[in-house]
This record gives sequence, C-alpha cells and structure tokens, in this order.
Amino acid sequence: MTTLAEKILTKSPGVCLYGITPPKRAIGGEALRTVVEAQLARISALAVDGLVVYDIEDESSRTHVPRPFPFLPTIDAATYADSMLRDLGVPKIIYRPVARFDRTTFESTMRAEAKRPDERFTVLVGAPSRAAASAGISLGDAYRVAKDLAPSLLVGGIAIAERHSHGFAEHDRIIAKMDQGCRFFVTQAVYDVTATKSLISDLAIRLERDHREPVPVIVTFSPCGSVKTLDFMQWLGIAFPRWLENDLRRSRDILEASVALAIRIGEELFEYARELGIPLGINVESVSIRKAEIDASVALFGALAASLRPSGNG
Amino acid sequence: MTTLAEKILTKSPGVCLYGITPPKRAIGGEALRTVVEAQLARISALAVDGLVVYDIEDESSRTHVPRPFPFLPTIDAATYADSMLRDLGVPKIIYRPVARFDRTTFESTMRAEAKRPDERFTVLVGAPSRAAASAGISLGDAYRVAKDLAPSLLVGGIAIAERHSHGFAEHDRIIAKMDQGCRFFVTQAVYDVTATKSLISDLAIRLERDHREPVPVIVTFSPCGSVKTLDFMQWLGIAFPRWLENDLRRSRDILEASVALAIRIGEELFEYARELGIPLGINVESVSIRKAEIDASVALFGALAASLRPSGNG
Repeated sequence: MTTLAEKILTKSPGVCLYGITPPKRAIGGEALRTVVEAQLARISALAVDGLVVYDIEDESSRTHVPRPFPFLPTIDAATYADSMLRDLGVPKIIYRPVARFDRTTFESTMRAEAKRPDERFTVLVGAPSRAAASAGISLGDAYRVAKDLAPSLLVGGIAIAERHSHGFAEHDRIIAKMDQGCRFFVTQAVYDVTATKSLISDLAIRLERDHREPVPVIVTFSPCGSVKTLDFMQWLGIAFPRWLENDLRRSRDILEASVALAIRIGEELFEYARELGIPLGINVESVSIRKAEIDASVALFGALAASLRPSGNG
Repeated sequence: MTTLAEKILTKSPGVCLYGITPPKRAIGGEALRTVVEAQLARISALAVDGLVVYDIEDESSRTHVPRPFPFLPTIDAATYADSMLRDLGVPKIIYRPVARFDRTTFESTMRAEAKRPDERFTVLVGAPSRAAASAGISLGDAYRVAKDLAPSLLVGGIAIAERHSHGFAEHDRIIAKMDQGCRFFVTQAVYDVTATKSLISDLAIRLERDHREPVPVIVTFSPCGSVKTLDFMQWLGIAFPRWLENDLRRSRDILEASVALAIRIGEELFEYARELGIPLGINVESVSIRKAEIDASVALFGALAASLRPSGNG
C-alpha cells in the first residue's frame, strides 16, 4: 500500500480523495457530535488515499450576485481535522485561505506543522478578491514561508480550468506555483470537460517543452442534487456547458443525471490525461449537506475510483 | 428507398450528404474535364441522399486576418450542377449567396426553379458582412421571393453553432428561418462538440415549448489534413477547442487524427440528438483540394453514415 505522500512525491496517477466541509460553528453539543460521527462513519467506509478538509470562506466579495445559500461560518479546517477527526486513520489535506492569517500567525502555524511527526498536507488558497486580500499574508509569501519553515509539509495549490477558458494562462499559473513549492493541484468541481482537457493539454505541452515532470492534478467532482445546488455551484464559479445545464435543469432526477454526467466526464478526462502523461487523481465532495447529495457523492467516489485506478477498467 | 425530398418533408433523421466545391473558373478545357470526372467518379461511389454544391465567396470582408489560401473564383454552383453534374443521378443542394443577386435576377432565378420538373433544393446564404450585403437582395427578401415564386423548391438555411456560443441565440435564428420557409439546416464544419450540443439542446427546448416539430439539422464534417488547412478552417470561423487544436497541431498524422476526432464528435452528436428528438443528418466535405484530404472525406463519410443510419450501430 503506497501512502498519499509517496504517491504525491513519485508523481503518481490515481490519487483518490474525498472532500468534506467542517460543520457550522453555530452547531454545538449533541448535534455536532452527530454530524462528526456521520462523517467519520462515511469516510471510514471509503477506500481513500486522503481526506480534503475545506475551509469555507464567504466569497461574496468576488461577485455582486447574491449567494444562493447564506454564508454560515464553519469550524476552522485545521482545528476540526486535529480535534474531531484525529482518530480517523486517513491523511488530511487541510485547506488554508491565507488571507485569514497575518504573517506572524502564518509563520507560527507553519512552525507548528514542521514539528508534527506525521505526514502533513495543506492546500494554500489565495484570497477570493483583491479587497479580501488586503488583510492577510499574500499567497506568494505564504508559499515562501511554508517552504522555509515547514519543508516537510506537502503543499498543494488550486487549479481552475474555468480561468483557462479566459486567456489560456492557468497552466502558466500552475507552473509558477510548482516553482513556489506546490507538489500537487486540486481543481474546483468540474462539469466543463472541454476547459479541463484544454488546461491539461496546455500544461502537458508546457511541461514537455520545459523538460519537467508533471505533478498530480486532482480533479474535483461533485454531485448536483437540485436546481438550487446548481445555482450555488454556478455562483461558486463552476462552469456548466449550456447543453449540460439544460439537461440538469430539465431532468426528472437531477441528482442521478449529474452523477451519470460526472462519471462520463471523469472517464473522458482519465483517458485524455493518460495519453498526455499527466497523473490525474480525483476528489469527490458534496457542496450540499442534504443526505441524498452526500450519499450520491459516496456512490460517485466509488464509480470514479474504479474507473481511475489501474485495477479498474483502465 | 426514400428520396431526399421525402426525408426532408417527413423531418427524418439520417440524411447523408456529401459536399463539393465547383472547380476554379480559371481552370479550362482538359484540366476541367479531369476534375469533373474525378468528382463524378467519387460521388457515384457514395451512398448519398444528396450532393451539396457550395458556392464559395471571398469572405475577406468578414475579417481583417489575411486569408491563408488566396481566393480564386469558382464556377457558379447552379451552373456547375446543371451542366457538368447533370448526369449524376443524385439530388443537388445548390448554395446561393443571395447578396450576389439583385432582386430582379433572384426573382427570375426562382421562376426558373419553379418550372423545373425534378426535385429542387437550395440553401440560401446571407452576406458574410454588412459591407458585402449592400449590393444584393437581403436574406429575408430572398426567403420571401423563394416562397412566393418557387413554392416547390426545398429551401434550407445555414446554422452556425459557433454563433450560439456568443449570446445563445442561434436556435432563435433557426426558428425565425423556419418561419421564413426553411425546411432543413446545414451547419458549418463542426469540431466544437459542446457548442453544437448546446445549440441542439436550446433548439429542442424551444421547439417543445412552441409545440413545433423539428426539421432536419445536417451537421457538416470536414477532415483537416495540414496545419494550413487548420488555419484556413479557423479563418472560415470554425471553432476548435484548445485541446483539440493542440492535438491536431502536434499529431504525427493530422489527417488521421482529425478523421478520428470527427467520427467521435459525430457519435456523440448522433446519440445526443436522438435523445432530444432532433433529426440529425450529415454532410461531409473537404475544404482542401489535396487528394489525401478528399480521400479522407470519402472515408469519413462512410464511417459517419454507418454510425448515423439506423442500420448502423445506432
């Protein structure tokens, strides 16, 4: 059994992650314990290489469009992973929105990471907007601090194929982040197979030109169980091709339709990335806390993992 | 055996067309006869429902980008079909760029069409730019004249999925053209499966909402045998997703790669249109006069026709 760290360091394809959001801070006592137990049970049953623990920000500064669901602060990802998920024998990849840290706090956080004996993973997330960035450390500075103070910490970055559709520069941003210490990338949820294939293609060409080895690109998939979830995903910046949005909005069972589409998108991406030698992985999450959508994310994880892993149909 | 007219009037899927461009006007005598004989031999061997005869315009007014191939005037499509292709026992669909006609000439052309005893088909093409439009009859007027003076002439329109990517209104233009008498549509060559699926989807939704029956949408496919042909197709306004353009430009055999991609795009479109009840057809052409590309268009026609026709894999 290869560990997540080994898979990342050897730039292997097939990394399978599951993603969760910590519970809302407003939940307390018994209700919180129930949520945590449900998450633990769900994740323990999955053959995952690691668990992504998101840190949700109020991204309202990014857009003037009203947020379809109200923003409710959640428990800090690192706190949640270290306390309530401590007994879960699965590596955690902690999302850290860097703008929330001033330099001193970020430095002490990285020093603490360096002292931890277990394998540690984080994804550093830039501010959603220029306005939101002013308060904290910049993403570039955060990468430098992480490299200097916590060299054993495996740092990942975010890749957004939708940005690649406008200007075709996301692969250059990926390369720049690799130079700053990123060992792997996680995309936002993908429903636009074309944009993602184009990003993979441009990345593969640039890496080949520069005689560099690719690092794992972990593609996120997320079921969409209602028109409101679809609105929310679009609000988050996830692109849906017009036909696919039409199909989802008009389908009798939007959840089932979205899972079927995600499996098909995954298969197309896995095949394409394999041809180009980009080591693809998966990350499955539910952006909704409805039970049906969470159950669907578990089923989707199983289907995608089977199709991605060499022992699967590949 | 159902005729092309019956297939169009009964709004049937599976219409299979092959498209040719008449020879350059500068060619004469023996050389012209050789070209015509080669076209006749090629088309006779194909199981086509009809032959599209293009009328190539100098579209340079549409863009400031230099034309990759020089524009050389070709023999008028109607003249060519009626003279040199007369003995070919295949219905011809004559492209007519309406801006080339003033009202009087267009009226007499339509009166002549009305007197022909055989089944007659035409595709009326609008001017490539506002500047080019000023000289002749407008597309709207041309539809009206055709309807009034040649009611038995089966008139088709052009559908461009690439336009649908900008503003999502091409399906409304299709409906407006149906109202003006269009019985079928022919697309430009498709390499962007997403834009075409989105157009089909929006069209199907609008038709259902309006309780109207769809008419055949004939999707054009064209092999791409060189980087120069690719440049030319892009100059013509054909969209290539970034990854697909990368794959073509970097492939060892661009012609083979383009044919394989076109077959895959066709299969995806046929499946999707079948689900939505849009009667799809195919039209295969070569934008290049290189023998290898023309041969590839014949092979592509065979593969797509097999996959489209009910007796095929569908």
